[in-house]
Amino acid sequence: MLCTIEILTIGNELLTGKTVNTNATWLAKRATSLGGLVARVTTVRDNLTAIGTAIREILKRKPVILLISGGLGPTFDDMTLQALGNTTKRPLSVNKIALSMVKQKYRSLAHGRRLPLTKARRKMAILPKGAEALPNLVGTAPGVLLQMGKSTVICLPGVPSELRHIFETSVSGLVSSWSAGFGRNSKSVHISGVFESEMAPLIDRVMRRNPGVYIKSHPGSREGRTRSKIELEFSFESSEPLNAQKEIDCAIADMLQILPGREKIVK
Amino acid sequence: MLCTIEILTIGNELLTGKTVNTNATWLAKRATSLGGLVARVTTVRDNLTAIGTAIREILKRKPVILLISGGLGPTFDDMTLQALGNTTKRPLSVNKIALSMVKQKYRSLAHGRRLPLTKARRKMAILPKGAEALPNLVGTAPGVLLQMGKSTVICLPGVPSELRHIFETSVSGLVSSWSAGFGRNSKSVHISGVFESEMAPLIDRVMRRNPGVYIKSHPGSREGRTRSKIELEFSFESSEPLNAQKEIDCAIADMLQILPGREKIVK
Repeated sequence: MLCTIEILTIGNELLTGKTVNTNATWLAKRATSLGGLVARVTTVRDNLTAIGTAIREILKRKPVILLISGGLGPTFDDMTLQALGNTTKRPLSVNKIALSMVKQKYRSLAHGRRLPLTKARRKMAILPKGAEALPNLVGTAPGVLLQMGKSTVICLPGVPSELRHIFETSVSGLVSSWSAGFGRNSKSVHISGVFESEMAPLIDRVMRRNPGVYIKSHPGSREGRTRSKIELEFSFESSEPLNAQKEIDCAIADMLQILPGREKIVK
Repeated sequence: MLCTIEILTIGNELLTGKTVNTNATWLAKRATSLGGLVARVTTVRDNLTAIGTAIREILKRKPVILLISGGLGPTFDDMTLQALGNTTKRPLSVNKIALSMVKQKYRSLAHGRRLPLTKARRKMAILPKGAEALPNLVGTAPGVLLQMGKSTVICLPGVPSELRHIFETSVSGLVSSWSAGFGRNSKSVHISGVFESEMAPLIDRVMRRNPGVYIKSHPGSREGRTRSKIELEFSFESSEPLNAQKEIDCAIADMLQILPGREKIVK
């Protein structure tokens, strides 16, 4: 099955340019390596309407998985679960399992201090009806999984270490089992001293002669620089990695043969 | 006027996690600093339908500016202008000014070599009807500006140096004149040894007492770490920077007063 994935990252800091969206990159990389196909990334502000609208639009496109990051914490502008509940019409209430996770976490953090279950802490256990809490062993806010028709919505905290931990323990298995061995294989060749515009017709030709192989050129610097380098990334999507490697190697050999003489290959 | 901005970044490499989307961060930061309000960032693959659909959806939300990055180059998967033309029903044809920019660029790059105007090079001058070419002094593909109703669509190359150059020379002036002095002012205070969940009610209180000031907490590490640090970012949006600074300083003073004793402020 093609495991289509969309990513929704939430946070004003991503839209003021204060923070680079490395969560989106990390999730996209891991999901792709597990065989998923990431179709779109969307980033919106900490705003109930903006988050709800984005979730509704994404669910209409019926991805197999919607990964959401950010907005699960204790402060007023952590509003992902409320937006998810509103937009899916699942009323919010305290989830017992989530609450026990939060309680246990603060007990373990107390070290003799008094850490009562304040409203802000309890908030992290208020989930949409039907949602499942995902254990967060390295932070306090549990992850959240909500099945919506054929789409699985997964909410992860915005703190990178917590996001990565919950993804690895509760999500990665789902992605690899749903993509059932399907995956993207790729290999890159680096070429110097050639213009991207000169490579364009060669890329067309090699792709025509090697069906299924996708060649993407990544100019390392602007066209025309004397020492300009271009990365040519050859990729093939298949459920048979060995065959994919063979297809890629054939296309690379084909490309190397038709490259005009003066280019230096720094493979 | 509130100069609302959406950013659309295009490229498979952003959705396989190969490349961190620093173009989105850079554009968001610059646009914010010039007084724009970035409402959403969308990232889609190099696919005609995906790009066209995303442009149509964004234009329906009527941002003042839509900044698009990527897909202006000479290769087959550079398809931003075709998608823009299709979705806005503006037929594509060679734009004379764009063509003269491309021609001139290759002349200047030739250094005695023969650099004919191949199909791949000519492609960079094929624009939707009514579009304007924006000079690209550091690369080959011109930027593109297309007015669609009240929204201005601006296409920039994905190579960061080219994107930044065209933004600074042809776009930054538009953003600052359309936002007419409106802008976001902010100041951060760093606090250590306190849980974010303890800060939540204090943030609520200070925001209630200082209307218009927005306080966003950025946990530097997961809740409960002994050496955990939290950044509190105080921001205020206004067309009067001096007044904004005053409001922010009042809110910070207010926060410092109600912080319980044990926190260390590492301003």
